[in-house]
Amino acid sequence: MIELFFLGTGGTVPSPIRGLPSVVLRRQGEIFMFDCGEGTQFRYLSLHLGVNKKMRVFISHLHGDHVLGLPGLLMTFSVLGRERPLEIYGPKGLNDLLSRVFSLTGFEPEYEIKIFEISSSGIIVKDRDYSVIVDTVDHTVPTFAYSFEESPKPGKFNPQKAISLGVPKGPLWKRLQLGYSVTLPNGRVVKPEDVIEGVRPGMKIVYSGDTRPCDNLIKLATNASLLIHDSTFPSDLKEKAIEAGHSTVEEACKVALKANVQYLILFHLSARVVDVASFLEEARKTFKRSIVAEDYMKIELRREKEIKIIPLKDRVLQPHLWESPQQSEELANL
Amino acid sequence: MIELFFLGTGGTVPSPIRGLPSVVLRRQGEIFMFDCGEGTQFRYLSLHLGVNKKMRVFISHLHGDHVLGLPGLLMTFSVLGRERPLEIYGPKGLNDLLSRVFSLTGFEPEYEIKIFEISSSGIIVKDRDYSVIVDTVDHTVPTFAYSFEESPKPGKFNPQKAISLGVPKGPLWKRLQLGYSVTLPNGRVVKPEDVIEGVRPGMKIVYSGDTRPCDNLIKLATNASLLIHDSTFPSDLKEKAIEAGHSTVEEACKVALKANVQYLILFHLSARVVDVASFLEEARKTFKRSIVAEDYMKIELRREKEIKIIPLKDRVLQPHLWESPQQSEELANL
Repeated sequence: MIELFFLGTGGTVPSPIRGLPSVVLRRQGEIFMFDCGEGTQFRYLSLHLGVNKKMRVFISHLHGDHVLGLPGLLMTFSVLGRERPLEIYGPKGLNDLLSRVFSLTGFEPEYEIKIFEISSSGIIVKDRDYSVIVDTVDHTVPTFAYSFEESPKPGKFNPQKAISLGVPKGPLWKRLQLGYSVTLPNGRVVKPEDVIEGVRPGMKIVYSGDTRPCDNLIKLATNASLLIHDSTFPSDLKEKAIEAGHSTVEEACKVALKANVQYLILFHLSARVVDVASFLEEARKTFKRSIVAEDYMKIELRREKEIKIIPLKDRVLQPHLWESPQQSEELANL
Repeated sequence: MIELFFLGTGGTVPSPIRGLPSVVLRRQGEIFMFDCGEGTQFRYLSLHLGVNKKMRVFISHLHGDHVLGLPGLLMTFSVLGRERPLEIYGPKGLNDLLSRVFSLTGFEPEYEIKIFEISSSGIIVKDRDYSVIVDTVDHTVPTFAYSFEESPKPGKFNPQKAISLGVPKGPLWKRLQLGYSVTLPNGRVVKPEDVIEGVRPGMKIVYSGDTRPCDNLIKLATNASLLIHDSTFPSDLKEKAIEAGHSTVEEACKVALKANVQYLILFHLSARVVDVASFLEEARKTFKRSIVAEDYMKIELRREKEIKIIPLKDRVLQPHLWESPQQSEELANL
C-alpha cells in the first residue's frame, strides 16, 4: 500500500482552508516528501509521521511557498533526535539556500543532510524496489516534476506447476517466490519464471510542482496511478494562469487525459477558490476521476484496487483536537 | 489601549499546544511584532491584523524558531497588496539572511522593506508619542530585548483654574489641552502647566527574547506595565536552562520582582511543559501577577486599569473555525 498525506494544498499564500504545499508519500515505513511550504513541520508532527524514518525530500522549485518550511523541519528533526541521514533533492540553489540559512541562524544538524541539486532529467533515486524519476516542467523558474515508481513485482506463484515440476511444498517454494532458482535432488534446475506467471506492475505517483501544461509532464505521468497537478485557477482565469506559469483546472484535466492517468489530484489551489464543489464539478466534465486536494486529506492506494480517500472530516484528527497531550496521545494511535 | 496578541508561545520546537514565538502589540492602529517564528503569517492572517498597517518588526535574535516565519510573512504581504514600507529591527546578520532568502527564492517585494541592524543599546524608534528602546540580554548568540514605551501624557485639564485665570471656555481650552500656551486679549500668557495638573505616565511593555536572567533586562523592564519573559523550563531544570541560555519559571519571576513590573507573562515554554496549571502555581509563589502565555491569547491594557486577559477558549476564534469563508468573514468582524 502507498499512503499519501496532503499536508498543505494551497498555493502562493495560505488561505483559511489551505496551507502551503507539501505532500508526503509513505510506503513500507519510508517517507517521501514533495515540497515543504511554511508550516509543514506542524502538520507533519501532528500526523505523527516520524522524525527518524528513512526519508527523502523532493523540492519542485525554490519559490518561497514551496520551500520555506524546509529549514524549520530540518531544525526540529535535529532537536527531536533524528539520527538517520536525510536526502534532499531539488534545483540548483537549494544547497546555497539551506547552507546560508543554517549558518546565519547558527544551526548545526545532529544528523547528516545530503543535498542533491538536480542537473538533468532521468532517474535520481534507484532503490531496491522503487525509483524516482525527474523531469523539468514549465514554470517561471526552473521547476521539476517527480515520478515515484514501484518496480514491477513478480506475478502469482502457481503451486500446481511447482508440484508438476517436482518441487515439494516448503522452503524451496519460498526461494522461488523470492526470485531465486532452485536445484532439485535429481539435479533439475527450476527457475522462478517456470512457476510464477507474469509480473504485476508497480504503482506510479507523479507530483507536478507548479507548471503550465507541458509535454514533459504528460510523458512523465503516462499511465500513472495518480497525478498530483498544479490547478491554481478556475478555467475562466486562463490568462492569469499563463501569466503566472500555472494551470487552470481544465488544463490539469487535459494533461491527465493525455497522460492516461488513473486518478488526478487537483492541487495548489489559489486562495480564491472557495467553492470547491463547483471546482470539482468543472473538473469532472473533462476528467472524471478528479479529486480536489484538501488539507490533511489522506489517500490509500493498493495495487489493482480502488483508491480510498479519507478526508479530514472523516477522521479523528482535527487541528483543534491537537491541543492537549491526551488528545495528542490519541492521535498517536490513529 | 494597548492590545497584545500571542501568535505563538512555545520555544525551540512547536508542540501540540504551542506554535513558535511571535507577539503582536497593536496600538492606535499601528502594529509592532516581536519575533516571527515559522507559521506566524497564518496566525497573523487568521486574526485579521491587517497586511497594510503601519508596522514594525523586532527580532530578538537569529535562531530559527524566532525568525524563520519572517520571509514568508513578507512574501505574503507582497502578494496580498501591501504598499506601505515596513521596518524590521534585529541583530547583525538579519539583512544578509533576508537578502539571501529573497534572492535565492526569487522574491522581489512590491513594497519597501527597511532593515535596521542594531549596533548599540538605546532608543531605536522615537515616534510622536512612543519610543522603542533596546538592550542586549544573555543568550547563546547576540540577543536583544525590546521595551515599547508610551510617552507620558498631559494630566487632567482643570476648567476651574482656566476660568479663574480668565481663559473663556472654547477654542483656547483646546489649545491648552494640546500643550500650547495661549495669549489672552489683556496680553496675559497662560501656559498649559497653569491649567493641566501633572502628567499621566504611559504604558511600558517589555519583550525579552531568549535569555538568562540578567541585569540589563531588569534595568530595561523596571516599572514596566508588562514583561514578556523567557520561561522555557520548570524550576527543577535550572541546569538545562543555564546550558541552553534560557530561564526557568522561578528565574523569570525573580526578574519580574526585581524590575518591579506590574504583570509578568511567562513565554517561550518548552514543549515539555504540558501541566500549565502547576507551572502557573509555581510561578505565583514567587510573583503573584504571573500569567502563562497561551497561543491566540489576547491581552488588553488600559492605563490605570486592570488588564483583561482573553484566552482562546473565551473567544469566537478557534483554529478549526478558520475553515470556511463564511466563518472567516465572521472573524473579520470580531
